[in-house]
Order: sequence, then structure tokens, then C-alpha cells
Amino acid sequence: MAFSDAVFAITITLLVLEIRPPADEGNLLHGLLALWPSYLAYAVTFLFIGQVWVNHHVMFDQIRAADRLVLLLNTLLLMVVAFLPFATSVLAGALRSGDGQRTAVVFYAIAFDVTALTFNAVWQYACRHRLLRDDLDPAAMTAIGKRFQLALAWLAAGALLGAALPVLGVAVIAAFNVAYWLPIEGESPRARS
Amino acid sequence: MAFSDAVFAITITLLVLEIRPPADEGNLLHGLLALWPSYLAYAVTFLFIGQVWVNHHVMFDQIRAADRLVLLLNTLLLMVVAFLPFATSVLAGALRSGDGQRTAVVFYAIAFDVTALTFNAVWQYACRHRLLRDDLDPAAMTAIGKRFQLALAWLAAGALLGAALPVLGVAVIAAFNVAYWLPIEGESPRARS
Amino acid sequence: MAFSDAVFAITITLLVLEIRPPADEGNLLHGLLALWPSYLAYAVTFLFIGQVWVNHHVMFDQIRAADRLVLLLNTLLLMVVAFLPFATSVLAGALRSGDGQRTAVVFYAIAFDVTALTFNAVWQYACRHRLLRDDLDPAAMTAIGKRFQLALAWLAAGALLGAALPVLGVAVIAAFNVAYWLPIEGESPRARS
Amino acid sequence: MAFSDAVFAITITLLVLEIRPPADEGNLLHGLLALWPSYLAYAVTFLFIGQVWVNHHVMFDQIRAADRLVLLLNTLLLMVVAFLPFATSVLAGALRSGDGQRTAVVFYAIAFDVTALTFNAVWQYACRHRLLRDDLDPAAMTAIGKRFQLALAWLAAGALLGAALPVLGVAVIAAFNVAYWLPIEGESPRARS
Repeated sequence: MAFSDAVFAITITLLVLEIRPPADEGNLLHGLLALWPSYLAYAVTFLFIGQVWVNHHVMFDQIRAADRLVLLLNTLLLMVVAFLPFATSVLAGALRSGDGQRTAVVFYAIAFDVTALTFNAVWQYACRHRLLRDDLDPAAMTAIGKRFQLALAWLAAGALLGAALPVLGVAVIAAFNVAYWLPIEGESPRARS
Repeated sequence: MAFSDAVFAITITLLVLEIRPPADEGNLLHGLLALWPSYLAYAVTFLFIGQVWVNHHVMFDQIRAADRLVLLLNTLLLMVVAFLPFATSVLAGALRSGDGQRTAVVFYAIAFDVTALTFNAVWQYACRHRLLRDDLDPAAMTAIGKRFQLALAWLAAGALLGAALPVLGVAVIAAFNVAYWLPIEGESPRARS
Repeated sequence: MAFSDAVFAITITLLVLEIRPPADEGNLLHGLLALWPSYLAYAVTFLFIGQVWVNHHVMFDQIRAADRLVLLLNTLLLMVVAFLPFATSVLAGALRSGDGQRTAVVFYAIAFDVTALTFNAVWQYACRHRLLRDDLDPAAMTAIGKRFQLALAWLAAGALLGAALPVLGVAVIAAFNVAYWLPIEGESPRARS
Repeated sequence: MAFSDAVFAITITLLVLEIRPPADEGNLLHGLLALWPSYLAYAVTFLFIGQVWVNHHVMFDQIRAADRLVLLLNTLLLMVVAFLPFATSVLAGALRSGDGQRTAVVFYAIAFDVTALTFNAVWQYACRHRLLRDDLDPAAMTAIGKRFQLALAWLAAGALLGAALPVLGVAVIAAFNVAYWLPIEGESPRARS
């Protein structure tokens, strides 16, 4: 899955292109501080894609064979991930201008949630078509699936709450990053390959 | 062919840079909806390049040795693929503005068809100069070649039909993605490397 | 750590996008020469990221296992590195316009120093949680740690001196590149992997 | 040298970002045709970087060990390569506007020639510090070095002739691509790794 890794790495690195230096260098400090929504959106999306990358490895470590539909579903997942810089740019723009914040937060949260949706689609398809490793513990399989489904629900909640109160939507998504980056109970360090 | 993979991955990820957030945040929802041609062009090109990537692997899995002309032909293929974000941007712009649609669709379809042309050139050259694996079944060789030639004809038809009726050209290319992503009869899942 | 390598390579290559061709082709030579701050900022950041890449390899060669917090700290490191093109663009803009130089140099030096900070965080965490290779000589471990801490202090000095006199801050950072690229006493050539 | 490969692949793929769709969709065909200098500059630089990539592999296949100065010289080489999209953009802009062509062609040729210069520096350094493979035939070593020196002279001639007559400079560089992509007498196909 070197191709997927490359798409994650490129997407995460392109995020910075959406942040433009302030036009007025006469008061540069003010201009740099006024870009805080861009920095915030950058950090939230960066940590989210980093998280998706880690979990993508966890997922494909369990998949022993890929048929054409797994490749297609994975391509759809990458298509949504590669779209996130645009959603990030929309969010940052709305937070900076103060206009359209509700729309921007919902748009952003939906983009994240569709990422989780395609992620779940790859996993569910692989489970149902017996493409997983033979030695995979059913309990582990269920635990992974649950974790992915929770992400789907969490980010959907972010979209709904963001429609009510934009700042709440952003907070829910930021909290998602924190929760999913925390170590999992009982997980041990992995030897580096 | 890690170099080719990287070019495919980068090109596919750069596509999103062609989509610019709406300038007017006052009516952001309207602005985001008006960008539908950009989303459409993004998805069609993304799925096309994903398809080219998959088939590029199928092709190079059969090639046992590369001489300098294979490298040159492959570089020409990459040169056309890396050009697709520009053609995509031209198409999206014309669909958004309503002007120049015929020209844009033909330009877009030709870019896709030249991709197929260079693809066929690599394959034909490798076949004729005996650079394929020794254990390759002649029937499989013929089947792969036929599939690549069909792509060439299909996309040329997209250009011709697009010249007559732009929407038809886009539909033919979108249908190409569907047809070429479908599983091939009798194909079995491949173990992940 | 192929993912980290990719982020370094992409960031380093995106730097050039911040340099825009002169708008006035009537006096192109003058326009190209006037871009010297962009060339300077490009070279300093490029050599810095190249240096970070080399040392990132040195560091991860000593780490035998990665837990989730190492991954998170490394992701934070990449998040800061991927942000450097923006800081570079801010610096180049201020040097070109003559306004806001003090702010721009301090901002740039802080971005470099936070890179060193996250770098040290990965190393310290790995040292304290016994994630290093068993055969690592304690003297080598101490030497690596010292070298990383010196970088942190050096770049902090760059920020402080840049606040007093912008040109001095840039000189201190440029000198950092020179010092850290020089061969280390007693180091022998490494076989290529 | 996966890092170098990545920088080549990213640079080559970023070239397309310098080509902007015509602003006036009312006469799109005219606008697309008027971009011919951008297409030309894109193709020449793409084929040049592809050539540098191939030769970079040839060169590093002969180098058995890399010390810190080889890494630094290689980083300088990458720094120049990653700068080529800017030089390409300057050339395309001048050819489109008709102004500043002499300056632009010389600038472009110098950027290419400095690439060749850093390339020769890596090779010469590796030769003199005995970092080459032990089984390397001295005749092969001399042949490789000659080929690299010829590139340096050829591209310098491109800069000089471009200063006299811009179109001649571009022709000399385009001819360089042709000459260096041609198969070398006696070279045999290489098994794919």
C-alpha cells in the first residue's frame, strides 16, 4: 500500500499551501496573528490525516488479499482524503471572514465523515468477502470494526452539532483527534519494520 | 517502478489544488454548490488516474527487463499523466462558466486518449522487443493488449462525441471509468505484497 | 519511516512554489535579481530540512520500537516541518518589501526552533521509555542527545538575535546549516542501503 | 536514494502547476493554443529531469558508500533540481509575452547547467575519495565521467547561444534531451528490480 501512503503524505504536506502570507507587511505581526483560523484548521486536518494513515496501516495489516473492489473502495477513500485540503481551506476562510461559518463547519465535518465512511466500507467489504488474514482473532476483528464505526458516528455528531453551533462542531472534531491518538489499553510498542 | 508510482500518487493528489474556495463567503452554500463541475472533473480524473495506476502495475508485472526506450516511453506516459490536472482544470472552468465547453471536453478527452496512446506504446514496444516475462501465456498477452487498445478507441470516441455534444463526451469518459474498474471475469484476489 | 521521508521530500520540493516569476517581463533581469531574498530563504530552508532529514534517519536508526506516542510526537514534528514553506514565504516577503523584517525573522527562527523542539521530544521520549536499540552505546546516546539540544539552543539564539537585528538572526540560522552539515570528527562513510 | 527519487518525482509533477488555464473561456481554443510556450517548456524540463533521474541511478549504482559530503553535494543537486519549475515558469512567461526572452533563456540554461555542475561534483568527489564500488571497471568510470562533463559543456553552450539568439538556446537544450535519451551503444536491457 505504498501508493496510499504516498497519497496521505502528499495530502498532509499540501495543506500548508492553503495558508497565504499576509498581504500587508506594514503590520506583519497583526497579519500573522489574524491567520489563527488557518493554523487551527491546518493542525486539526494534519492530525486527522495522520490518524487515518496509522489506522489505514492497522487495517491493511489484517487484509491478506485485495481484489479489484477493495482497490476501488480504497481509491474512493484516497479520493476523499485528497479532497480534505479544499475543505480545510473553506473552513479557514469562513473562520477568518466570520461569514458562512455554519456552512463551512458542516462541509468540513461531512468531508471527515465521508472519509470514515469509505474507511468502514473497505473494512466491511474485506470482512464479508473473507479477505482477512486467517489467524485474525474474531474478537480483534470486532474491536477494530467497532472503533471504525465509532469514528463514523463521532464525526457525524460533529456535523450535526456544527450545524447548531459552529464552534461546537470544530471542538467535537478536535476532540476526535485527541481520543483517537491516545494509546489503546493493552497495546504494546511495535518493532519498526 | 517506484518512480512511476510516485508520479501517479502526486498527480492524483495535486488535482485538488485546482479547486478554489468560493470568494464570497456571504453565500457560501451557494458558492460551494456552484463548484459542482470542479467536483465532477476531480472525481472523473481521480478515478481515471487510479485506473491507469492499477493497469500500469499489471503491465510492468509482465515486463522482465527495461531498456532505455522503454524508460523513455514510460517517461512520455508520465509526462501526459502529470499534465492531466491542467486538462481537468480547463474542463472544470469551462463547465462552470458555460463558455468553451466543446473545446474543453475535446481537449480533456484528447489528454486522456494520449495517455492511453503512450500506454499502448510501452506495451507494444515491450511485446515486439521480447522484453516480457518468459512464462507469460500468449493468450494473456493478447488479452492485455486488446484491453489497452479498447481503451484507446473508447477515449477517442469520447473526444469525437464530445465535439458533437459536450455532455456526451463527459458521459463516455465517466462510463470508461466504470467499465475499467469493474472486476474482470475470472480474476482472483491477489495476495498483498 | 518511509512516511516521514516522503513528507520531508515533498516539503522541500514545495518550497519553490513560493517563488513567483516577476510580473514585469519588460525588465526581467532586474525582476529576477530583486527576488534574491526568495532565493536566500529557499536555500536556507532547503538545507535545513535536508539536515533534519539526515538526523531523522540517525535518530530512528537507534529506535527499535515505536509506540503510539512516538508516532504522535513524530507526527507533530512532521506538522512543524510541513509548515516551514509558509514561514519561508513570510520571511522572503518581508525581506523583499523591507517591512516587517524583525517580525518575519523571529517567526522564521521560531518555526525552526519548534522543529528542533519536537525533534528533541521524540528522542527524549524514546530514551526514557526504553525504546532504543539494546546495543546502543550510552556514550553515543548522550552524544546524540547533546547534539540535538545544541540545535535547540542555537535556533533559539537565532530568534533572540533576530529580534534585535534581523540580519543577524538570518546569519545565525545560516551558520547553523553550515555547522550541522560539516562532517563529525571520526564519522566514517556509511554503506548505501 | 529513495529520498532523491521522491524529489525528482515531485519536481517533475509540480511542473504542471505553472500552467494556468486561459482566463477567457469565450475563445478557449485560441487561449489554449497561445499557451504553446508553456507546453514546450513543460516538455523540455520534464524530459530533462527524467534524464537526470535515470543518470542519478546510473551514478549511485556505482557508489558503494556515502559520507556526509556526498550527502551534502547530493542535497545541493536536489536543491537545484527542485528550483527548475521556477526557471521553467520564467521561460514560459517570457516566451508568451515576447519580452525578456534573452534573459529568460539564459536563466533557464544556467539552471540546467548548474544541475549538471552539482551532478559532476558528486561524481568527482566520489571518484577522488574512493567511494566507488571496487569492481568498477576504470574504463567505465572514465566513460561515465566523460558523459557527465559533456553535459556540462553542452548546457553551457546552450546558455551562451541563448544569449546571442534565444531560440537557438532552447534548440540546443531540446537537442540535449534527444541526445541523452538515445540508447548508448552496447547497452543491454536491465532486469527490473
